[in-house]
Amino acid sequence: MKEISGGITAPKGFLASGIYAGIKRNKKLDLALLYSEKEAVAAGVFTTNKVKAAPVTLTQRQIRSGAVRAVIVNSGNANACTGKQGVSDAREMAGLFADALGIDKRLVCVASTGVIGEPLPMERIRPAIKQGVDGLSEKGGGDAALAIMTTDTFPKETAVSGEIGGKRVTIGGIAKGSGMIAPNMATMLAFISTDAVIGREALTRIFKNAADQTFNKITVDGDTSTNDMALCLANGMAGNRSLQGKGLQQFDEMLHHVCAKLSRMIVMDGEGATKLVEVRVMGARSRRDAEKVGFAVANSSLVKTALFACDPNWGRIMAAIGYSGAHIRGEVISVSFDKVQLVRNGAGLGKEIEKKVVEVMRQREYAITIDLKAGSAGATVLTTDLTYDYVKINVAYRS
Amino acid sequence: MKEISGGITAPKGFLASGIYAGIKRNKKLDLALLYSEKEAVAAGVFTTNKVKAAPVTLTQRQIRSGAVRAVIVNSGNANACTGKQGVSDAREMAGLFADALGIDKRLVCVASTGVIGEPLPMERIRPAIKQGVDGLSEKGGGDAALAIMTTDTFPKETAVSGEIGGKRVTIGGIAKGSGMIAPNMATMLAFISTDAVIGREALTRIFKNAADQTFNKITVDGDTSTNDMALCLANGMAGNRSLQGKGLQQFDEMLHHVCAKLSRMIVMDGEGATKLVEVRVMGARSRRDAEKVGFAVANSSLVKTALFACDPNWGRIMAAIGYSGAHIRGEVISVSFDKVQLVRNGAGLGKEIEKKVVEVMRQREYAITIDLKAGSAGATVLTTDLTYDYVKINVAYRS
Repeated sequence: MKEISGGITAPKGFLASGIYAGIKRNKKLDLALLYSEKEAVAAGVFTTNKVKAAPVTLTQRQIRSGAVRAVIVNSGNANACTGKQGVSDAREMAGLFADALGIDKRLVCVASTGVIGEPLPMERIRPAIKQGVDGLSEKGGGDAALAIMTTDTFPKETAVSGEIGGKRVTIGGIAKGSGMIAPNMATMLAFISTDAVIGREALTRIFKNAADQTFNKITVDGDTSTNDMALCLANGMAGNRSLQGKGLQQFDEMLHHVCAKLSRMIVMDGEGATKLVEVRVMGARSRRDAEKVGFAVANSSLVKTALFACDPNWGRIMAAIGYSGAHIRGEVISVSFDKVQLVRNGAGLGKEIEKKVVEVMRQREYAITIDLKAGSAGATVLTTDLTYDYVKINVAYRS
Repeated sequence: MKEISGGITAPKGFLASGIYAGIKRNKKLDLALLYSEKEAVAAGVFTTNKVKAAPVTLTQRQIRSGAVRAVIVNSGNANACTGKQGVSDAREMAGLFADALGIDKRLVCVASTGVIGEPLPMERIRPAIKQGVDGLSEKGGGDAALAIMTTDTFPKETAVSGEIGGKRVTIGGIAKGSGMIAPNMATMLAFISTDAVIGREALTRIFKNAADQTFNKITVDGDTSTNDMALCLANGMAGNRSLQGKGLQQFDEMLHHVCAKLSRMIVMDGEGATKLVEVRVMGARSRRDAEKVGFAVANSSLVKTALFACDPNWGRIMAAIGYSGAHIRGEVISVSFDKVQLVRNGAGLGKEIEKKVVEVMRQREYAITIDLKAGSAGATVLTTDLTYDYVKINVAYRS
């Protein structure tokens, strides 16, 4: 496997475009279209929020049929908490895109991200879809990555390629993170394309697993959006024998790599973030316990302000571990920052060590390793610091 | 029942003092002593954090015996994550205080708040205890309230008095909130005294219930400290007949009032807070569901920055309700700010209404009422906004 340039249009047979439809006030690209020359098998993971945006519900249904040919995504408006009008608008987006492509509308998925609670400006989206279809191209992946951004500061795309069973298989992906100069935008979207030949069940299984290990292990502010969605489309144009055994494992690693890379980009671009910190939990009684500890530490406002301040404030970490709900015994826990151990048996190792930890914390990226010494399970959560800019970005009024 | 001036020494037979022992670097009072002329029955509630400070563990044991005569509290150092030394230091504090008073050391409770992970400066605390005992007085409640502060910006004390069964019964209390210019200080402590004659079981039951409805329903940043503790001592010096029936109910209301008032003071003094917001949840299937929704909304960084910005950002509230884990249906929910309804059937009521809501949000205190329309249970959580100053206070380094 090697990383290659490009994103969602890197695999064979995928075309994309990104245009300005007039949804965003700032004139930036706000409508992304993705089209596969051949019908693709598809897998998806969706927000667990019980308040789901209309496009999420629609796309969950489309994915259940297993076959997808195209995806339409708008930014600037989440089409969430918009009632029956929202459902009808999401359906119309799928229908218009299908008509312009000359395909069945049941083969189209829809995603939205942006302000909650306002109706989509359909009068602007309708004419734009035709224009977007005319622009579909193998080089359109970059524009699509731009068009799904809200207040992300950079587009997120990546691709990998590898030989599986004598055939070149490529996976590409784009994603957007949570940025919210205009409030209510806190959606994570990711779209992955591949030309691999793979069965739907296998794709669903390994994509859910990869998403659980990557997209579901990042946190910027602990708020789960109404619109989160990650889709993976496999159109089979690489011509490999349907993946199984070792080939499937190779593909699994490639897919995991793409998801992990996009996840890191999302955290790196978290609102106001100046740090990318891996919280690695080991020695837990169960994976669930490891996740509880990882997220308690990664979401603690006190820990996150300490990360921003480069303050080796292990007491806050111990406190977060203590209230995580996991089975722990404080007096056996150890905590390290990169390779510098700061806490042994639940107690600090002194001011001299803290000075070394400050050096680690001055880096842009580092890892905090927590050994609970209660078992053999582990989990890793990616997080950022909590900064003045986070507050600044989130107090800006919507207008 | 009426509010009276004073705090923990307002009830008969309670003496207190607050002195500077030399634990804090800023020369402010840091050691509070409380003494009851007669043995008191006692009840306590303690942090659920599994990483518990040494004084918490000690005091939990003392309370189990049911009788308490004195409480010693230091600020500036939490005596948490301090290993065997910490346990021995907490015991020594109780022992020295008991010796100076000439009472059994098993009648002494200990509490600490401040930096985690540093040993107590016992060499300074030892001589100070004698000095503090000499200073014990009926007028010492105010100094005690000052001495338990960390970076609280004002002392928190209150008292109420009422006639129960022909006798005047008084309840007084002091508390400290979470303020942390010196990081790791995030402890809530509350000490309540009363001269009522009341059985231990009744006191335990109604105090736990009052604490659950007040101290356990406030949130500043969602971090649960290693040192949280609330104690209630009843020394019986009011001479009333042991409380039961209507009298007990009267006392219950008085105690609830004292706890609620101290809770509001704590939230009002939350770090960097400019708002005091009541999140009232009604129409929940169960109380547990109502609490889940209340805390999800009250702890959401996105909601809290919107409170700071006076932004009627109901989409963030809907999203928090959606991920709370409670049984909800987004499309029936209504949300009001004070008396202005902003969301009906899960959808916003428009820009004109939002302007009215902005007026409500400009107040220092207001309520957000969420009706889930799924049942008849409710819960109320008090919270603050998330401000630049919160970040500023929490990035300050410990030295």
